[in-house]
Amino acid sequence: MARAGRRPGPTNTPDAILAAARELFAERGFQATTIRAVAASAGVNAALVHHYFATKERLFVAALNLPLNPAEAIVNVLAAGPREQFAERLVRFFVSTWREPATGQPLQAVLRSAASTDQGAAMFRNLVENVLLERAAAALGVPKLRVVVAMSHLLGLVLGATILQIEPLASATDDELVELIAPTIHRYLSPDS
Amino acid sequence: MARAGRRPGPTNTPDAILAAARELFAERGFQATTIRAVAASAGVNAALVHHYFATKERLFVAALNLPLNPAEAIVNVLAAGPREQFAERLVRFFVSTWREPATGQPLQAVLRSAASTDQGAAMFRNLVENVLLERAAAALGVPKLRVVVAMSHLLGLVLGATILQIEPLASATDDELVELIAPTIHRYLSPDS
Repeated sequence: MARAGRRPGPTNTPDAILAAARELFAERGFQATTIRAVAASAGVNAALVHHYFATKERLFVAALNLPLNPAEAIVNVLAAGPREQFAERLVRFFVSTWREPATGQPLQAVLRSAASTDQGAAMFRNLVENVLLERAAAALGVPKLRVVVAMSHLLGLVLGATILQIEPLASATDDELVELIAPTIHRYLSPDS
Repeated sequence: MARAGRRPGPTNTPDAILAAARELFAERGFQATTIRAVAASAGVNAALVHHYFATKERLFVAALNLPLNPAEAIVNVLAAGPREQFAERLVRFFVSTWREPATGQPLQAVLRSAASTDQGAAMFRNLVENVLLERAAAALGVPKLRVVVAMSHLLGLVLGATILQIEPLASATDDELVELIAPTIHRYLSPDS
């Protein structure tokens, strides 16, 4: 683990771990990739991977360059107020996430890469199937298919509003979007619907 | 308009017109591109462009390699039965369009190119803003924003089911998808909702 130089850069330890993680996750998928294998491939001790990224799931989210952990975000939004207004909070949170440059730009990059490269698609599929779906479906008490359909709706909106910049979607107000879309997300993600 | 050889190929007249159209539509947008300009750029008479493609809109759909004209498809599905079941017919039609290889593969290609290149995004935005939205919103009697939101939902589903191949969406039955999604599309695209 000797460092060749003093300046931080693409050769520092967290970046080396992330590069190894991206390669292994893309090649083997989320389930078959271990922290130990990532550490070995990066030439570091597994304890150091845990030190920087805590869990395999967080390492994966970091390797994808995601601005946030979508499973944690759903659980947090769920806990932030009454269940009856969960869909409204989620849509508002999601619209501001894609409109805020610090989170919107990495989100667009992930989406572009998922839509245009096989490796990007595999990473994204792994994220949804292994990190997001199980936990979100359990926390919400709805079947996984409903979670994927709701997520696809939100992804389609990001695509239309930011990458394709289709009007009048791109410049609709947050309130217009919440009013239109929250009832749909409520229907998809409520256990009683 | 002399033809150099006898075999059909990338140098035949319709292909030359389409190549010129793709370049001009991408460069100037749908509105500013004329049949006359496309004809001049392809080195043919404007009457010949009309002969092969009838209208600028159809030329544009052909230049995009779209398997169908989305505005015509919506109008046809609308006319095919009672308005109350329009959303169900539309979702069923759309799911079979993306699952049928002859129409699904070109649709995926358009979506990939729209998500990954600036020219693809511009062509797609032009298609929606100039060909789809006006006509669909008028035929359905709903604001354009609702049409874009419904379309984004359907695009997100194609992305998730075909390009990203996320389960359990990718292998859900047509009936499951219609049951889940048709009420949403009904709500977005009904004038009284």
